[in-house]
Amino acid sequence: MKTRTITAIIMAIVMIPILIWGDHFQIFNLFCLLLSVGAAFEFRNMLRNEKKLPLWIDILTVAMTGALFSLLVFAGTIPDAWIFMTLGFLFLVILYGIILVFVNDFKGSDFGNVLATLLYCSLGFAAFAILRHQSLNLVLYLLLVAMMTDMFAYFVGMKFGRHKLIPAVSPKKSVEGAIGGLVFGALFASVFGILTNVFGPDFPVLFVIVVSLVASALSQIGDLVASKFKRSYGIKDYSNLFPGHGGILDRFDSSMFVAMALFVLVSLIAWY
Amino acid sequence: MKTRTITAIIMAIVMIPILIWGDHFQIFNLFCLLLSVGAAFEFRNMLRNEKKLPLWIDILTVAMTGALFSLLVFAGTIPDAWIFMTLGFLFLVILYGIILVFVNDFKGSDFGNVLATLLYCSLGFAAFAILRHQSLNLVLYLLLVAMMTDMFAYFVGMKFGRHKLIPAVSPKKSVEGAIGGLVFGALFASVFGILTNVFGPDFPVLFVIVVSLVASALSQIGDLVASKFKRSYGIKDYSNLFPGHGGILDRFDSSMFVAMALFVLVSLIAWY
Repeated sequence: MKTRTITAIIMAIVMIPILIWGDHFQIFNLFCLLLSVGAAFEFRNMLRNEKKLPLWIDILTVAMTGALFSLLVFAGTIPDAWIFMTLGFLFLVILYGIILVFVNDFKGSDFGNVLATLLYCSLGFAAFAILRHQSLNLVLYLLLVAMMTDMFAYFVGMKFGRHKLIPAVSPKKSVEGAIGGLVFGALFASVFGILTNVFGPDFPVLFVIVVSLVASALSQIGDLVASKFKRSYGIKDYSNLFPGHGGILDRFDSSMFVAMALFVLVSLIAWY
Repeated sequence: MKTRTITAIIMAIVMIPILIWGDHFQIFNLFCLLLSVGAAFEFRNMLRNEKKLPLWIDILTVAMTGALFSLLVFAGTIPDAWIFMTLGFLFLVILYGIILVFVNDFKGSDFGNVLATLLYCSLGFAAFAILRHQSLNLVLYLLLVAMMTDMFAYFVGMKFGRHKLIPAVSPKKSVEGAIGGLVFGALFASVFGILTNVFGPDFPVLFVIVVSLVASALSQIGDLVASKFKRSYGIKDYSNLFPGHGGILDRFDSSMFVAMALFVLVSLIAWY
């Protein structure tokens, strides 16, 4: 617990300035790119636990995750960018199709696992970066949901946890903790969201509360998604980059999942 | 061989009018949508050979392939469509993330296989549809490359085949056949491409020849991609929709792969 706290303090000291001033000089984009590439590295490393492909395929896939992230993040600033995104996905399917043919050990399921790496590790962090570009409050809102949900789920679960939530995926989580996380996560997020008009001035209080409840639920699901992947491939932590917390995908599992959903919501609002 | 010929004649009778007049009333788009959804059905059916997931997940995935196809094809007609494509991919990762958590039998590798179904079965046919919308000659060019390469690879291989090409993926193919397919496929395509100015009037003959050689090679790789998937999951044909030929993915494996590459090329030319 002591290591965990020290790591959290160091992370806060490093991340808070990046979060606040990172909009300049692409600093926040670069930070998210590093997280995305690091996550892809952790994900490929996990897959090696089950089956070792030639190392160059893993390195290529980590690099391609970074490329896809960049395409997603910079696409927003280019007119007609839909074509570039489509081209990026076409290129990746052709590329890994060629590898499928010429690398004997690369089978159908490896093709799928590559696509899982590419999409899972690029989309969440790309959403993060684009949301930051749109407004600091959106990112603070999303981090608040993820962190408060996580924290209260832990404490409420410790104190009142009786019924197992979903033991096949994460044996320690309880229904009571999940409800506690949902209520308090949504509460803190709603208060912040209402005070800052995070979705714009036209939205009623009820809208912010409903979104906060959904966001808190998705935050917990994001946590469980990362756990289910770990279970599927028999690892405990994605890495030990943040001592006491685990790897990038252990630490950002909830926030990247909420970031994806929040980005969908905010884009639909802007479009509407 | 007789069944094969009869099927080919029936396919030609059905497809030629759709190809020529299909630009009206979205007929060609709908035809490609049917192929895309049918391909997804075949692909999921193949995966069931290795592991049976709950049927509703397969049905959902076939439907989502159709949705992704539609998004890709109609995105080209909407301003700011990049955002819709991004949203589509985000939505799919969130959706299957939720299934990953709540369906015990749905593991990490199933998540990957779903993404493989979605991308492999939507992108190729979407490229086909968009190319047709851009020009009939482009689609004729691509069908010519795929069919001539296939036909000459078969006949040259039958007559002169000595050295196995890639026995682990497709035991019957020979190096001699592949070279024969490459030479004659590129020859017919080049002649057609030069006569019709298929890439526009500004491109030298050498450009069309090089593109045709690459397209013929990719056509053969596309064939091998579909074969490798079949080998990976231990099936012989994707279905028996076209008697003597197999299923959609047996019949359109080459052309959908060439369509993806050709779409990348044509888009880059238009952008440049």
